Amino acid sequence: MYPEPIARLIDSFLKLPGIGQKTATRLAFYSIEMDEDDVALFAKSLLSAKRDLSYCTICGNLTKDDPCDICKDNSRDGSTILVVEETKDVLAMEKMRNYHGYYHVLHGVISPIEGVGPDDLNLASLLQRLHNPEVQEVILATNANTEGEATAMYLSRLIKPSGITVSRLAHGLSVGSDIEYADEVTLAKAVEGRREL
Amino acid sequence: MYPEPIARLIDSFLKLPGIGQKTATRLAFYSIEMDEDDVALFAKSLLSAKRDLSYCTICGNLTKDDPCDICKDNSRDGSTILVVEETKDVLAMEKMRNYHGYYHVLHGVISPIEGVGPDDLNLASLLQRLHNPEVQEVILATNANTEGEATAMYLSRLIKPSGITVSRLAHGLSVGSDIEYADEVTLAKAVEGRREL
Repeated sequence: MYPEPIARLIDSFLKLPGIGQKTATRLAFYSIEMDEDDVALFAKSLLSAKRDLSYCTICGNLTKDDPCDICKDNSRDGSTILVVEETKDVLAMEKMRNYHGYYHVLHGVISPIEGVGPDDLNLASLLQRLHNPEVQEVILATNANTEGEATAMYLSRLIKPSGITVSRLAHGLSVGSDIEYADEVTLAKAVEGRREL
Repeated sequence: MYPEPIARLIDSFLKLPGIGQKTATRLAFYSIEMDEDDVALFAKSLLSAKRDLSYCTICGNLTKDDPCDICKDNSRDGSTILVVEETKDVLAMEKMRNYHGYYHVLHGVISPIEGVGPDDLNLASLLQRLHNPEVQEVILATNANTEGEATAMYLSRLIKPSGITVSRLAHGLSVGSDIEYADEVTLAKAVEGRREL
């Protein structure tokens, strides 16, 4: 019904997650009202992001150069590897400015419901890295949900026999949150993990 | 913080309406996981929608060829012109399959708050079209909100002196709706516009 060029653009927007027919139509119509330069830059960014980025062969982080800037950085602490689900988690951790070790990105979690098993994760290169005698601790920073916990459990069983310390991020109250509004499971974990002052 | 190609893509998504930092990041990361073909098609669609589409010089509708398919269609009823705010409204009307006249797209409404006056609308070509003695009625189908009503009022005053009939879409209850849930203004309009059976 729409002229073909816009119909095709709507279809492309529709392929993105969480974008339905109405939003796709709105975005497509907005795009053709944008500056020519902005549209050209958008198209170029799409192609460049797809073509110029790859995953670091060491840690699996998204990077322009291989190995990535973090893996190349010799000033970091080689004794710890922090394992996360996605590239975005590396960024979140780096924002904290409190961790100076290396990372490993799994690109997913074990999820039988979605048919994702250990073989679908970026695990082989992690096990490879553990052969390095410098590595003393693996911090499992998968998300605090069922899949994240299951994946952490799996990794823990896999890594522990090699004698490397395996740790998991602490559970508890968010900083600034009210006890009144915390869910029971979080509260139970907060009590369980209480620390002497 | 993110590698440059993805940071630029996030920026591009951020320029779209209703897309904030989190959604833009999610869409950008999703895009680089898409098939290479899909990404190439997306980029091509963006450029093509911007370059190959223009506004019909007669009615202002978005089109690949000028004049647009509707204006070129001689089988339509030349006695009526239906005036809408946006290209999308033409599509909505055409879906109805009940109207066989021509259209005119204003590309906006008069809105003092947003600094849009009559001169910013696609009006000159509408007045030009009214010189055609075939035109007998102009149907004002701007939206049923304050700006739409004000624009309809303005157009009505502008066109009526030329002797052409000016009409407005009926207000009333949506088909299938409950009186209980209708707002008072709509209900008042429905009573006011009641028809004998």
